[in-house]
Amino acid sequence: MQRTPARIGDPLEAIETPALVVDLDAFERNLDRMADATKGNRLRPHAKSHKCATIAKAQLARGAVGICCQKTDEAAAFVDAGLRDVLVSNEIVAPSKVARLAELAQRATIGVLVDALPGVAALSEAASRARTVIDVYVEIDVGAHRCGVAPGPSALALAHAIIRAPGLRFRGLQAYQGAAQHLRDPEARRAAIASAAADARRTRESIVGAGIACDFVTGAGTGTWQLERDSGVYDELQPGSYVFMDADYGRNVAAPSELRFEQSLYVLASVMSVPAAERAIVDAGLKAFSFDSGLPLVHGRAGAEYVKASDEHGVLSIGADAPPIAHGERVWLIPGHCDPTVNLYDWIVAVRSGVVEGVWPIEARGALG
Amino acid sequence: MQRTPARIGDPLEAIETPALVVDLDAFERNLDRMADATKGNRLRPHAKSHKCATIAKAQLARGAVGICCQKTDEAAAFVDAGLRDVLVSNEIVAPSKVARLAELAQRATIGVLVDALPGVAALSEAASRARTVIDVYVEIDVGAHRCGVAPGPSALALAHAIIRAPGLRFRGLQAYQGAAQHLRDPEARRAAIASAAADARRTRESIVGAGIACDFVTGAGTGTWQLERDSGVYDELQPGSYVFMDADYGRNVAAPSELRFEQSLYVLASVMSVPAAERAIVDAGLKAFSFDSGLPLVHGRAGAEYVKASDEHGVLSIGADAPPIAHGERVWLIPGHCDPTVNLYDWIVAVRSGVVEGVWPIEARGALG
Repeated sequence: MQRTPARIGDPLEAIETPALVVDLDAFERNLDRMADATKGNRLRPHAKSHKCATIAKAQLARGAVGICCQKTDEAAAFVDAGLRDVLVSNEIVAPSKVARLAELAQRATIGVLVDALPGVAALSEAASRARTVIDVYVEIDVGAHRCGVAPGPSALALAHAIIRAPGLRFRGLQAYQGAAQHLRDPEARRAAIASAAADARRTRESIVGAGIACDFVTGAGTGTWQLERDSGVYDELQPGSYVFMDADYGRNVAAPSELRFEQSLYVLASVMSVPAAERAIVDAGLKAFSFDSGLPLVHGRAGAEYVKASDEHGVLSIGADAPPIAHGERVWLIPGHCDPTVNLYDWIVAVRSGVVEGVWPIEARGALG
Repeated sequence: MQRTPARIGDPLEAIETPALVVDLDAFERNLDRMADATKGNRLRPHAKSHKCATIAKAQLARGAVGICCQKTDEAAAFVDAGLRDVLVSNEIVAPSKVARLAELAQRATIGVLVDALPGVAALSEAASRARTVIDVYVEIDVGAHRCGVAPGPSALALAHAIIRAPGLRFRGLQAYQGAAQHLRDPEARRAAIASAAADARRTRESIVGAGIACDFVTGAGTGTWQLERDSGVYDELQPGSYVFMDADYGRNVAAPSELRFEQSLYVLASVMSVPAAERAIVDAGLKAFSFDSGLPLVHGRAGAEYVKASDEHGVLSIGADAPPIAHGERVWLIPGHCDPTVNLYDWIVAVRSGVVEGVWPIEARGALG
C-alpha cells in the first residue's frame, strides 16, 4: 500500500498528485438520491465500483440491505472490515475460493451465483465441510451474453439441484443486463430491460410453479436501475457507479424521467511540463486511469483537452484562445470508466469546501482472487 | 497488499487465478540476451515496467549500472529495497516530491530530468537544504513531443543554469524517442532514431563546445535499443519491457538484424463459466489487464480467442473446430501492454518446469506520486 496523498485538514493545494479525489457534497447527494429513490425495493449497491469499506458503510447507513462484490477476495476484505451481508454476484468455482467463501459464511451472510451443476456441487461440499450455509442465486442470461443459464427450464433445473444440496439455501435469480448499461439511447435501454424483466418473470414463475420459493430477483446497474425498479419483477437493485459516475456514463442520453447523478470522482493531476504553448504534460497517464472507455475529460479548465497518454504522462492540448497553462497547475480530470480507475489507487481523498475531510483506504483494491 | 496467489513449490495447478506469472527460463534468457548485447554501453533498465526489486537486482547482477523509474515514490520503493543508483527519467517539480528526492539522494545516487528553469531552481533548493547532490539531465524532445526542450540552444541554456545551481550535478542529456518504440515498420524506427541521435549529437556538441562536460546521453526503449546502441551517440540504454514483452511489441515487424526477446509474462486465468459451446468466460477482465494497447492474446490453446472484457470477466470465443473448453480450465493470456498490466498486481509468480520458484512482491505497484 502506498503512502497517503494527503492528510485530513489539508487544503486542496497540499494533495499530492496524481490522486483520486471525491467531491463529498456531490457524492453524498448521489448516495441520498439513490437511497430515496429505491425505498420500495432492496438496495444492494455494487461495491466493485468503490472497493472501499467506508463507502459501503455509508450506503448501509442510508438503508442498503448489504453489498455486492465480484470476487472472493473482495468479499473477504469487506467482511474483515465489518460488513455482514455480501453477495458475490459472480460464479465462483475454484476449490480454494469456494472454501474461503464458506469460511466467510461462518461470519456473515454470503451469497454467490451458479450457472452450472459443478458450481452447485463445489459450494455444497465446502459449506457442508465448514458447517455453514451459503446463499445461492441462479444467474440467468437476460441479454448480456456473459455468464448465466438460459431463462426458463435450465434455471429451474439448477434451482432443483440447489434445494437438494446440503449447506446451500436457494434465494432467487440474478438477472443483470450488463450490456444495457451503456446503450446511449434511452429507448434501447428501455427495450433491453423490458426483455430482461420478462425473462426473469417467466423464469421465476416456472420455479415458483414447481413449488420452490424464489425470494429475490436481483440485478440492475447505474444505467438502467429505474427500469428494473419499475418493472414489478426486480426485488433488489445492484447499482454501483452512481456514487462516482464517469465520462462514459455521461455519454448516455437520459430519458426525461431519468434521475441523474453528479460527477463526484476526479483524478487530480499536475502540470509537470509545458514544452509549447499548445501542449502541456500532466503526471497522470496509463497507470492513473483505465482507458477502456476512452480518455479522461478535463473539468473546469477552458480550452484544455486530454488527447494522449503514455504510462506516466498525459498530454493536454491547449487551445489557441485558452488561458496559458503553467508549471505546477492543478488539473481536475474525469475518468473514462470509474471502476477500473479506482482499482489503480490505494486511497480516496474526500474533499469538501476545499479541505480534505477524509482519506479512505481502498481495502479491496487489487482483490483479484 | 493482497494475499499471495501461490507458494514456493506449488505446482501450476495450485496458483490462484487470475495471477501474473513469469516463465523464468524465458525471463532469464531475456535478461542475459540484453546484458550480453549491451556490454559496450551502460545498461540502465527501466524499472517502471516491472516495479519489482527482485527483478532490478537480477538486472544489476548481470551488469546493469542502475535503474530508471518515472516517479518519486517508485524511486523511494527501490532505494528502500536496497538499490543505490536510480534515475527518475521524468520531470519532478512539486515541492514535496523534490524534497523527497533530495532525501533519497542522501542514501543513493539519484538522477532526475529538467526541461525548464523552475525545475532547476526547485531541485537546487531541495538539494541544498538536504546538504546533498542530485544528478540532473536535460531532457530534449527528439521526436516524441511529450516533455523536453528543443535540441540545441534551449538545452545549452538549461545546462548553464544547472552547472551554476548549488546542489546539482549536470550529467548529460535524456533523449528518449518514445513514439518510435511501437512503429511497426523497422525502417520507420530506424529513421526516427537516426533523427533522434542526430539531435542528441548536435546538442551535446553545443554543450561541450561551451566548455561544459556532458558525460552521458541516455535513452532508448525495447523497440529501438539496438539503433541507439549502434548510433555512436547514446552512452546509456534504458529498455524496460524486454524482460517481459507483450502483444503490442509482438506486432512490431523486426528487421533481420534485430535481436528478439521472448514472451515471459502471462496472466493465468481460469474458466468460470461455459454458457455455450462457442463461448467461455474467464476470471480476468478490465482489472486484470490494461487494455490501452488492445486485447490479451490466448497462448497455447487452439481455437480460443479473447474477444471482450468487462470489469472482472473476459469472454473467450471458442472456434467450431477447437477442443471443447471446460469449467476450471486454465488459460494463459499474453497482456496487450505489459507495464500498466503489471501495475495491477501485488505479486509476480515466477515458475520453472511447472513449479513455482518465486513469489516476488511488486514493491512499486501504485507508486503514483
